[in-house]
Formats: sequence, C-alpha cells, structure tokens
Amino acid sequence: MNTFLHAKDLTNIDLALREAAEIKQERYKYEHLGRHRTTLLVFFNNSLRTRLSTQKAARNLGLDVIVLDVNQGAWKLETERGVVMDGDKSEHLLEAIPVMASFCDIIGVRTFAGLTDRHADYTEQILNQFILHSGKPVFSMESATAHPLQAFADLITIEEHREKGRRPKVVLTWAPHPRALPQAVPNSFAEWMLAADVDLVVTHPEGYELDPLFVGDARVEYDQMRAFEDADFVYAKNWSCPGVTRPDDYGKILSTDPSWTVTARQMAATRDAHFMHCLPVRRNVIVSDEVIESPRSLVIPEAANREISATVVLKRMLEAMG
Amino acid sequence: MNTFLHAKDLTNIDLALREAAEIKQERYKYEHLGRHRTTLLVFFNNSLRTRLSTQKAARNLGLDVIVLDVNQGAWKLETERGVVMDGDKSEHLLEAIPVMASFCDIIGVRTFAGLTDRHADYTEQILNQFILHSGKPVFSMESATAHPLQAFADLITIEEHREKGRRPKVVLTWAPHPRALPQAVPNSFAEWMLAADVDLVVTHPEGYELDPLFVGDARVEYDQMRAFEDADFVYAKNWSCPGVTRPDDYGKILSTDPSWTVTARQMAATRDAHFMHCLPVRRNVIVSDEVIESPRSLVIPEAANREISATVVLKRMLEAMG
Amino acid sequence: MNTFLHAKDLTNIDLALREAAEIKQERYKYEHLGRHRTTLLVFFNNSLRTRLSTQKAARNLGLDVIVLDVNQGAWKLETERGVVMDGDKSEHLLEAIPVMASFCDIIGVRTFAGLTDRHADYTEQILNQFILHSGKPVFSMESATAHPLQAFADLITIEEHREKGRRPKVVLTWAPHPRALPQAVPNSFAEWMLAADVDLVVTHPEGYELDPLFVGDARVEYDQMRAFEDADFVYAKNWSCPGVTRPDDYGKILSTDPSWTVTARQMAATRDAHFMHCLPVRRNVIVSDEVIESPRSLVIPEAANREISATVVLKRMLEAMG
Repeated sequence: MNTFLHAKDLTNIDLALREAAEIKQERYKYEHLGRHRTTLLVFFNNSLRTRLSTQKAARNLGLDVIVLDVNQGAWKLETERGVVMDGDKSEHLLEAIPVMASFCDIIGVRTFAGLTDRHADYTEQILNQFILHSGKPVFSMESATAHPLQAFADLITIEEHREKGRRPKVVLTWAPHPRALPQAVPNSFAEWMLAADVDLVVTHPEGYELDPLFVGDARVEYDQMRAFEDADFVYAKNWSCPGVTRPDDYGKILSTDPSWTVTARQMAATRDAHFMHCLPVRRNVIVSDEVIESPRSLVIPEAANREISATVVLKRMLEAMG
Repeated sequence: MNTFLHAKDLTNIDLALREAAEIKQERYKYEHLGRHRTTLLVFFNNSLRTRLSTQKAARNLGLDVIVLDVNQGAWKLETERGVVMDGDKSEHLLEAIPVMASFCDIIGVRTFAGLTDRHADYTEQILNQFILHSGKPVFSMESATAHPLQAFADLITIEEHREKGRRPKVVLTWAPHPRALPQAVPNSFAEWMLAADVDLVVTHPEGYELDPLFVGDARVEYDQMRAFEDADFVYAKNWSCPGVTRPDDYGKILSTDPSWTVTARQMAATRDAHFMHCLPVRRNVIVSDEVIESPRSLVIPEAANREISATVVLKRMLEAMG
Repeated sequence: MNTFLHAKDLTNIDLALREAAEIKQERYKYEHLGRHRTTLLVFFNNSLRTRLSTQKAARNLGLDVIVLDVNQGAWKLETERGVVMDGDKSEHLLEAIPVMASFCDIIGVRTFAGLTDRHADYTEQILNQFILHSGKPVFSMESATAHPLQAFADLITIEEHREKGRRPKVVLTWAPHPRALPQAVPNSFAEWMLAADVDLVVTHPEGYELDPLFVGDARVEYDQMRAFEDADFVYAKNWSCPGVTRPDDYGKILSTDPSWTVTARQMAATRDAHFMHCLPVRRNVIVSDEVIESPRSLVIPEAANREISATVVLKRMLEAMG
C-alpha cells in the first residue's frame, strides 16, 4: 500500500479488521517491520488524537518518528507554479516536499479543508502534492475531504460492539456546531460504512447532502427521528455545507437548529444504540451529557482504536516496502 | 506507586535516596522496565528543566516518550460539567483525559496555579482530573501546589553534600521577585525536608506563611539574618501570598523588599552554607552573582539531579505495574 | 572532535568525504556508537532541513534525540553579566546552558545572526557561550556566521557529481532577495571550497565582499557573466552586506538588481554546470523555475546530503568520547 486516503486502499476490509484484532491483542507483534525506518508526521493543522495515536502506532512497529509542526504563520509554502516569490512565502512545496521525503520512509500529512474553494479542497491539493512529489508512501492524518484513520477506527469499534448475527443499522447524523467544520469525517465514515457489512442511513437538514464520491447511493432521511428508528449505532458529527445541492454555500453553516442535538429523546427511538463521535465534541451542542456519559457511549474506545487503525495502515505500508 | 504528588507517595524516603544513588551510578540499569511502555508528558505550561530531565529519565528506563504541549490559546479544555459548549472551548477534559490515557502507560502533567482561586489551586483541580479520569499512573511535573520532582532532587542534592554525622540546618528563605509566583516549590521543599533527617527553618516576611498542609509545624523565623545563623543549606525562592494568614491576598505580591535578596551579607552568618535554588533564577533579585557563582552554590548539580529524581519515580511506577 | 563550526574541525576533509560515502551506503553502520547517549538540539530559530536531517542522523547512530525550541518571546535569556534581572528575562544563560548540558552528551545549536551588531555576530556570542559553559561537545546547526553542516553537505554533493580527473570550477554567486539574510551559508561555502580540491570564484555586486576569515584570498569577480564562464558548479545564495568594505552597512540590503537572478542566460556561459542552492529558495528571485527544475539542478540531493554530513559529524563526536 503506497497511499492511504480511501477505504479501497486497504483492498480487503475484512482482512484489515482481522489484522486490527490481531494487533489489539499484541501491539508490538510487528515491531521488527519498522527497524531502521522513519515516519515523518507533518501537521499543517492542530491535532490531539491523531498526533498521539499515530506516534504510538509507529512505535508499536519499531518505527522512528519525527513530528513536524508546520507553523503556517512562520513558514508559508508557495503552491502556485511560475510565481515570482518576492512576497511572504519563503519556500515552494516543489522543494519542501522532496526535501522532507529525503529523511524518512513514510509520510503522514494533516491538512484541513480551507472551506472556501471547493475544487481545491476536493482535489486534495496539498495531500496530492505530497503523493506526487515525495516518492514515498503517504497517508492522510485527516486531509481536506477525508479522515480515513478515523473511519477505520470507527469500523473497528463497530465490529467489536455489533450484535453477532445481525447486520447493524448505522445512522450518521448531522448535529449543530458554532463553527463551520470540514466534511472529512462524515465523508470517510459514509465511505467506510458503505464498504462494510452494515446498513447506513444518513440524516441531516436539507442542503447538507454529502458528496456522492463518498456517500454513494446511501439512504438519506431528512427526518432525524425516523432515521434513528431501530438504529444499532448512532454516529453524530457536524459538518458545513458540502456544496453538492447548494454549490454557492460551500463551507457555510446552513443551520444551527438545536433540535438536532442528540439527546435521550432521539436515542429512545433506537434499539438501545451505541453512541459514537470522533471527538473533540462540544457537549450539549452536538450531544447531551446524558447520552455521551451513558454506558452505550463508545467515544473513548473509539478514540483508543485510532492507535489500532494507524498501526494496521503503517504495517501495510512497511510490508509493501519489502 | 500510582500517583506522585507528595513525599509520602514514595513511602520510604531513605530507600528512595538509595535508589537515587544507585541510578546515578548506572543510569540505564533499569532500562528493561520500560520496554514496550510509553509515557506521555502533558505540558499546560512552559518548562525547560522538567521537559529535558523527564525525557532523559524516561529514556534511561527504556520508555518511549510522547511530549504534548497544550497550547492553551488554540485548544481550550472545558472543565465544568453541564455546560453548553458553544463558546471557545472545543473539548471537555472528561473526553480529553481518557483519550490521552489510551495511548500511554504513565502520564506526567505540568499545570501551574492560576493564583486567583485558592480553592481551585489547592484542590489541584487539573491534576486530580487526570488522576480520576485517566486510569493510569499520574505524576506531577509541577502542579498548582507542589513540585515533588524538584523537592526530591533537592533532597538528593542535600544528601550528597551534607556533612556526615551532622543533622544539617536547612533554611528555606523567601526572596523578592517582580512577578507573582506559585507556592509549589516552597510547599514541596518544606514537605520533603520535614520528611527527611534535617532541621528546617522557614523565613519570610509576614503574610507569606505557607500552608500547614506542607509546612506542618516547621519553625518560622521572620528575621532572615537570625534564620541564617549556622545554616548548612540555604534554599532561596520567591512565592506569592499563600493566603493562609491573609486569605484576601492569595496570589498577590506583598513585598519586594530588596534586603531579602540573598547576598554575601546573609551567607556570612551561616556555617559556610551551600546555596540552592530550583531555577530559573533572576540574578541580583533573588540572589547576588557572587553567591550563585561561589563554590558553595549547588544550583547546577541540583538541576542535574532532576534526571535522577524523575528516573526513580518512573521506575517505581513501572515496578508497580508488574 | 569537540566542536564543529569550521572546516578545519574535521582535520582531514578527504577522510571525512570517504566516511560520508561509507555512511551513505550503510546508514546504520555506526548505530552502536550512540547507545545510551543523547543529543540535545536547541533551536533559537526556525528550521526545516536542519531539524529533520539532524534528527535522522542522530537516530542513524542510535542516539536519543531531544529537540528544544526556544521560543524567544516566552523564554528570554539574559546574556549580560552583573545585570539586576528585574525585567522580562527570567533566566541567565550562565545557568541555562549547564543545565541543558546536564541531560545530554552532545549539543547542537541553531542561532541566527542579529545583523545589527557585527562584532556580536562575528564573535559567535551565543554559540561560544554553549562551548564555554556546557562542558559538552557542541556543533553548529547554523550559527551567526557559519553553516558548516550545509557546507559539508554541499561538498559531498560536489564530490558525487564532479567530472573525474578534472578540478572543477565552482562559482559562488550572490543573488537578490527581498529580506536581509545572514552570511552564514556563503561564509561556510567559501571556507569549505577553499579547503577542498576545487577552483572557487566568488561573484557579487560591490559592497558584498565576504569576510576574509572565510573567503581568504579566493578570486572575486564583479562581472557575474565572466565568473560563470566554464563553471562546473554554480552555487547561488543571497546575503546581506558583510560589513567588510562598507562597515556602516553591515546587515543591510545594498542591491536588489534582478539581473543577478540566475537564469538560463547565465547558465549558458558555463560548462553545462550543475546548479546548487541550500534551500529554502525563492523561485524567480534567486533562480528561475527553468534552472532549478533542470536536470542539472542538485538542490534536492544536496538537501538529502544534510543527513550524511550530520551523521559524519555526530559520529566523529561520539568516537572522540571513547
């Protein structure tokens, strides 16, 4: 595996889930694979879970880790070709990327959507420059449109908690938030659920339709309460307008309707569903204290599985290097 | 040992001092203990000595280290329950702490006193949330009211330089400083000296009385020159009003009297005492150049012993894990 | 080797080049040397290549690495003696340096020229305090007047690409830049070329004469086109006024003449020369896209050799420790 951005990059999801279970039993089983190898983790944006879990995953595999925080204020990268660089940008990514790649074997990149230029975001301009110019395996640690390490951890968590012998109903529900957020998490969650053995229902106010690239022909239900009926898993997340049905509103907040906050009211309609969220979460905005603190809340084991998903991904990349 | 905040957490101070001496002879003797284990060092506040010495101590024990600088501007944690999180705080510590704990085996926390709410500081609100919610061993890398790794290093240093066969007189003296500082260092120093085989005298202007929780019934002498008489060790430190005798002045500067600056004048009253300070120190405010540069100054070996105290503490935590 | 600032610190350049070639073939050959040893990398200024390549080099040698970013805003060091430290500086380097040194075996320091006080810069005030007060081997990761890890990497790169049996003509050319930059890179490049088996020509507008300490009696040619004739290697770099012929203009921009930008026009005069630059580079200010992207451009392999030069230097320091 040379790139990790989409569910299909793992080729076989079931096999990946078995590898995840194996690593969870024995974290350091593949420690020999990373010997004399280095992964560089490049953060263009803040991170807590990803920063910690990916470092831990790398060390599980015996990889050396170098963390690079790109302070955008101090060190701006030029991305356009042909520019006379006499302004505030002191380095072009055409140099910066191959240089970074010189000192490592695998590169992880975190870069958020700008939420102003849909085309730039959905063509993953920054991440793809790393893929094109680094000559090294590159994995997304959340990029403009996708957060595959999160979605893979979510799937591992569902696999661990699903009722045996039943195809679970999984609801991805939009919830309000005071700031405009990217679509990376819901995009990847939808994509991975479609690739897995679950029934996905997506619910959100009108205008929040996700890109078909990720959500395919998943059932969309605009009535949140109806979507929650008989759900086994409820996955809450805010996202800003994806610009699919309302192109001019890309990246904007279309609703702050507090009735979409996930509370005991909606959860009562489910089959005693597990509650999930990628974190960080704003309590009593996205979800009530009562629901997130209930015994059915999976937010902590879900975050803990970020170590497992990252370990599987790095293991695959190391194995592909031979 | 599951928590490290107070001298009593080490159970047996003499044994701990013997372990310190052993580790100082052979830094990597217990390197096998940390194999396949990770310590997370969480800094809510700046640090130089603690940052470097604790990383080194962890590596002495074969531990992997992950350093997390919590930039309070960018990543504010909500600490109150029941709040509608629609403001500037994007994550609640009820999630953040168990998540951090998921990726490590031992957690170190640095968090300074706010110096406005005495109750919040003296109940160690942040540190105790880590102890309560992490499910992992937690050690203070200086918290609101205590700096036990410093006090343990101080004690190791005194042990190394004391005159054999004599119970040393140790003077903790307040000294002026242009900014209001926490009481963590003098609190822990007093506590550890009371637990050790030394005679402690505390000297400071009126109003600076330390909390009895730490200072017990140690002798307090308001006349600095009298306190210094026949001292074997002089430990200088500034602190702000502890709010014990003057509750309304908690965290305030009550005096900037330059006559309290430690100079050759006071040192002349001692038994050629060693001079100590935890650093960083403001020269010619806390102590004169002459005293800090004298052959009796222990400030550098004292700082170097921070590696030793941290190694003993992490060793104890690893041993307790089995 | 106890200090690394100048070419002569390596004693024998040819031997060092052979060691570089050996390490490039087998990065981890000397991994045993760094066992149970730690290098501290202290950054007073920003860094990309140096930060990554030096970490990688240290790990090649089995060294533990601690990176310290000295945020000058938050943690100002007093450097003058005898000062009453009641201002914004909370620690004196007379304490800070030996403390840092306590927790490591080798110290790397990055500190840029201030470009206002020529004497302070050219006496390497910060770096020399580390050499004087740390008691540990100290290497420059670019200091006020020199960037020896860069120059050594440049020389390795020239060695790899030179025509066998021919003494290459190497041109160091000034080029314009919108900000005033230090002379560290051209100083060290000139010094190392003079120590190597090459013909050096330096070209720049009048007033940009480099310090004889570094440039010796190298040929200076004020006509850039004439300098480029028959060149085998072209090394472009901006620098501010070194204050040699114009002492009052130290650190200033004397010219922004765009005719000095390296383009195909100048390269046509060469013997199909290789193009070199230390990076980061401003495209179409220092060099045209066409030249930097040409097959003769060595900027990426040159940056990659930073790992090799740092590995040789750290290896030498470890060997000297016995």
